[in-house]
Amino acid sequence: MGVTMSKPIEDFIHPVRVGWADCDPASIAYTGRIPYFALESIEVWWEHYVGVNWFALNLDRDIGTPFVHMSLDFYSTITPRHRLQCQVKLLKIGTSSLRFSVHGSQNGVLCFEGEFVSVIVVSETMQSQPIPAQILELIGPLVMPA
Amino acid sequence: MGVTMSKPIEDFIHPVRVGWADCDPASIAYTGRIPYFALESIEVWWEHYVGVNWFALNLDRDIGTPFVHMSLDFYSTITPRHRLQCQVKLLKIGTSSLRFSVHGSQNGVLCFEGEFVSVIVVSETMQSQPIPAQILELIGPLVMPA
Amino acid sequence: MGVTMSKPIEDFIHPVRVGWADCDPASIAYTGRIPYFALESIEVWWEHYVGVNWFALNLDRDIGTPFVHMSLDFYSTITPRHRLQCQVKLLKIGTSSLRFSVHGSQNGVLCFEGEFVSVIVVSETMQSQPIPAQILELIGPLVMPA
Amino acid sequence: MGVTMSKPIEDFIHPVRVGWADCDPASIAYTGRIPYFALESIEVWWEHYVGVNWFALNLDRDIGTPFVHMSLDFYSTITPRHRLQCQVKLLKIGTSSLRFSVHGSQNGVLCFEGEFVSVIVVSETMQSQPIPAQILELIGPLVMPA
Repeated sequence: MGVTMSKPIEDFIHPVRVGWADCDPASIAYTGRIPYFALESIEVWWEHYVGVNWFALNLDRDIGTPFVHMSLDFYSTITPRHRLQCQVKLLKIGTSSLRFSVHGSQNGVLCFEGEFVSVIVVSETMQSQPIPAQILELIGPLVMPA
Repeated sequence: MGVTMSKPIEDFIHPVRVGWADCDPASIAYTGRIPYFALESIEVWWEHYVGVNWFALNLDRDIGTPFVHMSLDFYSTITPRHRLQCQVKLLKIGTSSLRFSVHGSQNGVLCFEGEFVSVIVVSETMQSQPIPAQILELIGPLVMPA
Repeated sequence: MGVTMSKPIEDFIHPVRVGWADCDPASIAYTGRIPYFALESIEVWWEHYVGVNWFALNLDRDIGTPFVHMSLDFYSTITPRHRLQCQVKLLKIGTSSLRFSVHGSQNGVLCFEGEFVSVIVVSETMQSQPIPAQILELIGPLVMPA
Repeated sequence: MGVTMSKPIEDFIHPVRVGWADCDPASIAYTGRIPYFALESIEVWWEHYVGVNWFALNLDRDIGTPFVHMSLDFYSTITPRHRLQCQVKLLKIGTSSLRFSVHGSQNGVLCFEGEFVSVIVVSETMQSQPIPAQILELIGPLVMPA
């Protein structure tokens, strides 16, 4: 009886330092660097919630997370003037897959939105596997539909 | 009178050398590198059909081509075992925008498909502009719906 | 009367997050990435002591700092297991040039040592210029012979 | 009796396509990219003379070639206006090490000179090993003192 209030999910934001090396002759971050920023943010999300980076996940636990899809819309140019605040959300958990969104903002302006789907595999064989229960327990409560 | 047969459009394929530097500890090309391969292929397409790379286009002609969208599906891992054959098609021309597809294959196996939309801008101001007539004349005949 | 004790120069250390994207199939940071880490550390040193990153220095003040030399010795492999602590020292100031050392360590183990020489130029023309007095005042006290 | 004329060693030159992605807001190739160009040129040298790239060398033959030293002098800026012609020379063979030089030129102008020392290791353990006889036979005749 009564209402169960679930704890609201905190925002996860990874601040990226955009540097000289990231920019092209148009004096903005090169388009190809932006997926790097987003993927790094997802890797740091893993560190934060699952407690391992992709290196440890692959080498120590034989779990890989190769991506099968990415899609990005670019709304505003990115420069080294401000940190790029990358907000990562876990949108959906499938049997062997995870769908994330990453929204990147600078100085309060939305620069890009992206969606990224990765599959959980056995590193050694690259065969997909169900998400291990120990990981599911940690990330299950984090799903936030877009 | 009669039927005008237009010359079929040749396939444009840019072979990418995938090297040690492009690969991650899973011994495959890192996901984030793949947009680089695709964007490089589109830049080489510009060189081939318009006669200028993005550097000359920006610096000499004050024309920029920033991307507003990219979407990629990854079907098969990419390694340094073979050249990555990147086929670029111009799918659509808008007033100020171009939509490309890039299909990357290794050893006859499709590794990824992507779509990329860029906008034609005045470099100096980053304001969109209609595609210059001189460029339109060169690329107009190349449109191939997906 | 007595001895003037100059304030000892604090250690400047920039911690680099080494990620999956930085590593190669040998499961270590790719050799070519290491100069990036060192250069980024020098850029952050600029931010810290001069108050501007290279982007602002070039675009707002028309000052460039192109490198004319780098030399690195690699002693121990770098992985994502630990932050890479990059210590930057300003070794020498010439009329128009700066010599830095960068020492990178992980978990207390020295991974690499490098020296980097940059020249102060007018961005627009790439012609060398004497180090501006305002900058010299800030960095002059930081010189630490190796 | 008589003089044995050894066949002169051909120049080995790897042309690098410098693109938009390689350049920074100074409209020149970013300093950190130049070691990439040089290392790629050395990898292609391996392909050409030993018949394997670093990926196959590591994964199929369990031989690694990690670098212990690099040193570069930059003489002239690099841009996408021309191919960067990278000449690779094998300067010296040690018991377990190789010293290379790489000279990069654009349009006949020397842009950089570098030296790179790598050690031959067992990939799995990263322990140095004498250069395998089969490889020594192929590269021994290529040594050209600087």
